[in-house]
Formats: sequence, structure tokens, C-alpha cells
Amino acid sequence: MTPTSHPRLLACLDGEVADRPPIWFMRQAGRSLPEYRLLREKAPDFIAFCLNPEMAAEATLQPVRRFNFDAAIVFADILLIPLALGQKVWFEAGEGPRLGELPEMSRLRDGIAQVEEMLAPVGETLRRVRAELDPSRALIGFAGGPWTVATYMLEGRGGDRAAARATAFSQPELVDGIIDVLVEASAIYLAMQVRAGAQVLQLFESWAELLPEDLFERLVSRPHARIVARLRELGVDVPVIGFPRGAGALVEEYAFVAKVNCIGLDVQASAAVGRRLQANGWAIQGALDPLLLRAGGAAMETRVRQLLDQWGLGPYIFNLGHGILPDTPLAHIEQVVRLVSEP
Amino acid sequence: MTPTSHPRLLACLDGEVADRPPIWFMRQAGRSLPEYRLLREKAPDFIAFCLNPEMAAEATLQPVRRFNFDAAIVFADILLIPLALGQKVWFEAGEGPRLGELPEMSRLRDGIAQVEEMLAPVGETLRRVRAELDPSRALIGFAGGPWTVATYMLEGRGGDRAAARATAFSQPELVDGIIDVLVEASAIYLAMQVRAGAQVLQLFESWAELLPEDLFERLVSRPHARIVARLRELGVDVPVIGFPRGAGALVEEYAFVAKVNCIGLDVQASAAVGRRLQANGWAIQGALDPLLLRAGGAAMETRVRQLLDQWGLGPYIFNLGHGILPDTPLAHIEQVVRLVSEP
Repeated sequence: MTPTSHPRLLACLDGEVADRPPIWFMRQAGRSLPEYRLLREKAPDFIAFCLNPEMAAEATLQPVRRFNFDAAIVFADILLIPLALGQKVWFEAGEGPRLGELPEMSRLRDGIAQVEEMLAPVGETLRRVRAELDPSRALIGFAGGPWTVATYMLEGRGGDRAAARATAFSQPELVDGIIDVLVEASAIYLAMQVRAGAQVLQLFESWAELLPEDLFERLVSRPHARIVARLRELGVDVPVIGFPRGAGALVEEYAFVAKVNCIGLDVQASAAVGRRLQANGWAIQGALDPLLLRAGGAAMETRVRQLLDQWGLGPYIFNLGHGILPDTPLAHIEQVVRLVSEP
Repeated sequence: MTPTSHPRLLACLDGEVADRPPIWFMRQAGRSLPEYRLLREKAPDFIAFCLNPEMAAEATLQPVRRFNFDAAIVFADILLIPLALGQKVWFEAGEGPRLGELPEMSRLRDGIAQVEEMLAPVGETLRRVRAELDPSRALIGFAGGPWTVATYMLEGRGGDRAAARATAFSQPELVDGIIDVLVEASAIYLAMQVRAGAQVLQLFESWAELLPEDLFERLVSRPHARIVARLRELGVDVPVIGFPRGAGALVEEYAFVAKVNCIGLDVQASAAVGRRLQANGWAIQGALDPLLLRAGGAAMETRVRQLLDQWGLGPYIFNLGHGILPDTPLAHIEQVVRLVSEP
């Protein structure tokens, strides 16, 4: 428990195993917090909120203040990239995101040049957060995985992804073209986040499930590898966490192809697979079920201890296997932080 | 290509590798066939149709006549068991199944005694099919996996399963009690199907996805193992195919715990995992994407050859990774049967 200014999360991503794992939660900022809901009342438009550095920085810091998490993750949205590329994006209250017509491929390609300037406010958010954040806490930047973002761009909303997968079969050039644009745009956006203070990057591939092996490699693993390679070309050397939610039996193949530094595991993670990944040099992150966090009680406590026992001897970042549910009792989050912090 | 009366599917389940894999498709009977849609016009109520041996036998045989599949699977529904246990079940046109209130646990337990009599028409369907089916074709009986059936019983419909998973956390005794009833009812029902002519049994666990490892073992793998053990106690020695759709990284643990003879793999199957299962003594089945079958074309042909190449040297039953989609062109099905039959 020696407090130092070197963030525990970064040490873990370097392969160090300390007295306890670092902990943060996906969607730790946002609707589960009353202070966030108050803040949002001042800026009801979600995109405007994400692009307001003062408010987005406050939202980023709120959960770290309240729960003393080991990391802050910049408050933003994976759909800022299609927005920056020239596709209309808005949020219907209570229904989630909607996207306008998919622009022509040539316009999307031209859009890459605007990404850095259009998303400069996210850089400003990171600078503000870094200035306020305790140096012992890590700051995480992120982008959506190209396939996940492409499904929104193709379907115009979140959905069953079956339509996007069908398009990947029937119009491969279209889908591969969108992925190419997203790989380059994401690398530029993530490099900008690192220059603004992000010390770790995460790729949220929320919808890796149900992809056949050949499609998974084409649409998920290789595009991630290309983003990582492009980041290195751009001089970015911070660790990258890849989170291919739903990768299932393909998660180890993902690790070997994508060449990220840490593998985010979803709620269905296998203890044995996690240990194999650690033995092969990866840090791992996850995999507490957000439904169990919401349910709480003895079952939650048992599962937290089980995760610590099964993975705690290797580099392991305690986290959920998916984002916090909005109606999660805050006392449950406090309890898990306590269980992980005082083993 | 020696035609014998010993069904190719049974030889494969015995571990034999022949000149080509056997082939059948999940949901091969039903809405994708015009002759089925004609038949259904005579009995619009779906439950009544399932419990009408003349019509159900005809629906079972239609796809084998048309496509020359290596197996027929009895036309029935996984929700016949809750119906037999005393829960109301009906189908809303275009919307899928609806279930009435969950009966008290004591009533569900009492319901087990009615299963065999209530579902006797399914036995009669099997006898009629067996009498007409060419002896070289195998006849498959089935039941839903207990967890999948329990999610319908708990939620009153198909859905996101999150509510059922939350109940598994918050009311474990209730969920475990339902699973116990379903294990016993399924074993009785499946044993009856074998006495009526089924030569193979399949457990359709359609919703194994998103279950944390401890829950997966508790709700999927162990209940399957108990069904298999109970079948053996009841003197049933036919091979059992377990299909835990969405088991992901847990599919090998499933194989070792559930002790079924063949593992059904979903669309996201890993080639390497499939080969390991074969090397460890299991036959495998799957995993062509139904969306790719619907899309057709060169991509479909390439993927079919890839599946044959990657698994054809071990016991492999060619199948989909999920059911046929209703709007699948029949020419695509014919083409896949041809590709598999004339390699």
C-alpha cells in the first residue's frame, strides 16, 4: 500500500503485480451518478455536452472523487468519430443514438482531415482533467472499435447488428472501406488524446459477438492491429487495452493478432483463458457482471473474491465485463472498491 | 459414396470419418419452405400444429425430401415442456411465443408426471416419420436446454435474457428449482422420443451467451450433465448433441462437464477449438452463418470449403451455427448440400 505518484494502473499494464489490482469501471461516469444527472440538466444535448470541455472534464472527474478509482476515463462517445467524418449524429431521449444517411465513401475519406480539429474539445477535456487529477490516478483515452462504429454508421442506430453483418457479406468493399477510414481516423484521434494527456488508450469493440472467425479477423482483430501499428508510427507509445466484447472462443486469437497490451474480458470470461493470456504476457481486465453489481449481496462479494483469486497473481485490472447499469446502487460500487482495495 | 442403410450421421457420432460429413440444418423444417407454409394454412395455431402428428410428421419430412439431408429432426417446439408442466403458452402471430404466469413451484413439480402423456403426440410424430424415412437417414429428437426454457418461463416471452439472469442472481432458489424440474421433465420427454424412434438427441441451449463462468456451469453445463446421466439411468444410450449457443470461451469447459457426445458450435466457432474438441474425442457440429447462407454467392462457397477443410478430417456434422432464416433462398441451401455432398 505504498502511495507513489506512479499510477497503479500503469504499473499493472507494465506487467507488475502489486499488493492489489487497480480498479476502474466502464461507464463509471454518467447516469448512475446523481451529480452527473445534475450536471447534464445544464446541457441537455448529449453531443454538445461531450464537446464542452468544462462539463466533460467535470463528468470525467466525478466518479474518481466519489469512489477513488485508480483511473479516470475521458467523458466522450464512440460516435464522435462518425460525426467528425461528416455523418449526422444525434441522441433521441430514452432511445439512444441516431445517425443520418451514410456519406459517400469519398466524403468519408475527405472527412479524416477534419477529425483532429473537430474533436479538439476532447483534447481540451483531457488537459483539464489531467491538471486536476491526482498524479497517482491514470487517465484513459478511448475510441470505439471500427466494426462497432461501422455498425452504427451502416444501421443508423444501435441495433441487432445482423443488418451490418449481412452487409459485410453482401457488400464487402463498402464495409472494408468504412473500416479503413475508421482505422485512420481513430489513430489520429487517439494520438491527439495522448498528446493532450491520456496515458492509456482503450478500444471499445462492444459488438464483437456473433462474428464468424474469418469475419472477426477481417473486421476486428486486423483493424485493431492496424490502429496500434499506426499509433506507433505516429510516435504514440502508451499501452492499449483492447476490449472485444463477445469475442468468446476467439479472444486468444484476437490477442495474438491485435497486438494490444491488455485484453478486456467480458462477463463470460473463462478463468483458464485469462490465466493463459497473463502467462503469455498480456495484462487482462474485467469481468464482473454489471447485473451482479446491481444485484449486490453475498453473491456479488463471492464473485469479486473469486475474480481476485483466479487472476490476482498476474497483471489484472479489476473492472466490469460491460458498462455500469444506470440503476446500480452506489453502495454496491463502494463495496466492490473496498473489497478490491482491502483484500 | 457407398450407400448403406446405416445413417451417415450415426457413424459420424460414433467417431467415424467418412468420404464426406453428414449434413442437416437447424430449422430445416418450417417457414423457409413454401410447402410448409401451405401446410400451416390448414392449422394456424402453432401449438396445435406441433401436437398434430400427421401434420408435424409431414413438416419433419419435407426438408429431407427436398434437400436430401442426412437427418430429419422432429417438428416440435422447446416450449412444449412448460406447456406440459402447466404454464400457459401461445404464439402471437409475427411476434413469437408468450407464456402465462409462472406456476407455483409445487405445481411445476407435480407437472412432471403429466409430461409423458401430454407430449405423447410428439412420440406419434416420430413413429410416423420413422415409418416413412429412408433407413439411411437419421431421426433426431430434441428438447430446449433448461436455462433457455427457464428464461422464457421467467420472462413470459423471448427477450433480452437480462431479466432472467438478474433473477438467477437475486432469487437463486427459484431459478435452480425451475432448472431441477426442467432437467427431470426433459429427460422423461427425451427418453419417450427415443422409444418412439429418435436415434439422436439434441439439447438446444439457444441462450448460453453472456453467462458468467460460475453461472454458466450452474445453469448450463451441470444441468446438461444431469439430463445425460438421467437418460442413461432411464436406459437411453443414443448419442446426445449439446448446442450451447454463445458459450464462447467456455465451450471446452462445457464439453468436459456436460458429457454429451457431440458439441454444436455457433457461428463464432474457432477452428482451433473445434479441432481440439475432435482430438479429445468429441464429434462437432456447425457453424455456417445463416446470414451467409441467405447472402449466398462466392463468399458462401468459400466459407463452406473452409469449414470442410478445417474440420473434415475429424468427426464433423455440417450444419449452421443457428437456425435457417425464413427468407433464405432455397437455391442457396441446395448449393451448400451439393458442395458438402460432392467435395
